[in-house]
Amino acid sequence: MKVLLLAAHPSPKSFNHALADAAAETLKKLGHTVIFHDLYGEHFDPVLPPDEDTIAEEQLPSNIRNYLADIRESQGIIIVHPNWWGSPPAILRGWIERVVRTNSCYNFSPQGPVSYIGGKIVQIFSTSNTPSAMEQELYGDPVGVFWKSVVFGVIGSQSFERRNFDPVIVSTLQERQDWLSEVRETVLRRFSGK
Amino acid sequence: MKVLLLAAHPSPKSFNHALADAAAETLKKLGHTVIFHDLYGEHFDPVLPPDEDTIAEEQLPSNIRNYLADIRESQGIIIVHPNWWGSPPAILRGWIERVVRTNSCYNFSPQGPVSYIGGKIVQIFSTSNTPSAMEQELYGDPVGVFWKSVVFGVIGSQSFERRNFDPVIVSTLQERQDWLSEVRETVLRRFSGK
Repeated sequence: MKVLLLAAHPSPKSFNHALADAAAETLKKLGHTVIFHDLYGEHFDPVLPPDEDTIAEEQLPSNIRNYLADIRESQGIIIVHPNWWGSPPAILRGWIERVVRTNSCYNFSPQGPVSYIGGKIVQIFSTSNTPSAMEQELYGDPVGVFWKSVVFGVIGSQSFERRNFDPVIVSTLQERQDWLSEVRETVLRRFSGK
Repeated sequence: MKVLLLAAHPSPKSFNHALADAAAETLKKLGHTVIFHDLYGEHFDPVLPPDEDTIAEEQLPSNIRNYLADIRESQGIIIVHPNWWGSPPAILRGWIERVVRTNSCYNFSPQGPVSYIGGKIVQIFSTSNTPSAMEQELYGDPVGVFWKSVVFGVIGSQSFERRNFDPVIVSTLQERQDWLSEVRETVLRRFSGK
């Protein structure tokens, strides 16, 4: 299978990138094709230009057309990001805003949204300094709501899971190693099909 | 008083810009100084560069230093934006990520966040195509959670209000004119002090 892997952290030396690398290595061990996009490394511009949402696909910038091809071709999606202000960073939100376009990826119907890119195995790995329980209690888990209900509520999925690692800022080396092991086990468990 | 006014819509001809213009005109009638930033018009780059969050203010790009001066000097903030995927657009999220910095705007303490820029009159005007009741029921009002609990929960405020206009996509001219009148009345009511 082809798996689209997105990372959205400014530093290539970050724990986020270590998580993405662990996911990529495990996918490759399973024989899968990994389509990896480090949005910071690619200098992705997350600002949706005026009218880009309504033009034809042929008129889109080539990078957006390539991302669309990637999301269409992949049978799985893994997204790795930190929690900034209860959300993925702007660079990743803008990727959703520009790539997951009406008409290209989904459309509206009287019965609700109709997805053209559903049926994938979806895995979100997020990190935060706020403990998950506090994030849930204070804010209602906005990162979870965003991915599960808002984005993949529209796109649909074969199955959806999210794991938040926290609090990163005070974590020990042992904890981070355990979390990396958990990423490998999760990817093995969820992406072991063809 | 000085009021910081932020707009975050790609099209200068949008209803969002009409809302921002109505707010600006009313503030000026009240004798206030309006510090208006059209983030799209200014080509604001919402991508937080590596390490920018930890460098000293003197090392920041000049536009970020100017935004910091603006937010410090203003006694009121009005923000106008559409709802994209249950959130302000990436350009505005990135503005928060880059400008509302730890150490510059707030800090952490054992008792919770300590704000250096609190005490302002805050007004959010948002627009959506999803009706507010559905946004609340399906997603728990993520735009409201973001501004009221996440951002201004940390920054603090003298008073906070938000009004969402919806559904914009099927609104009549009369409805939009009524909404513009409501913006003028809201600004008159909330920003009538010195």
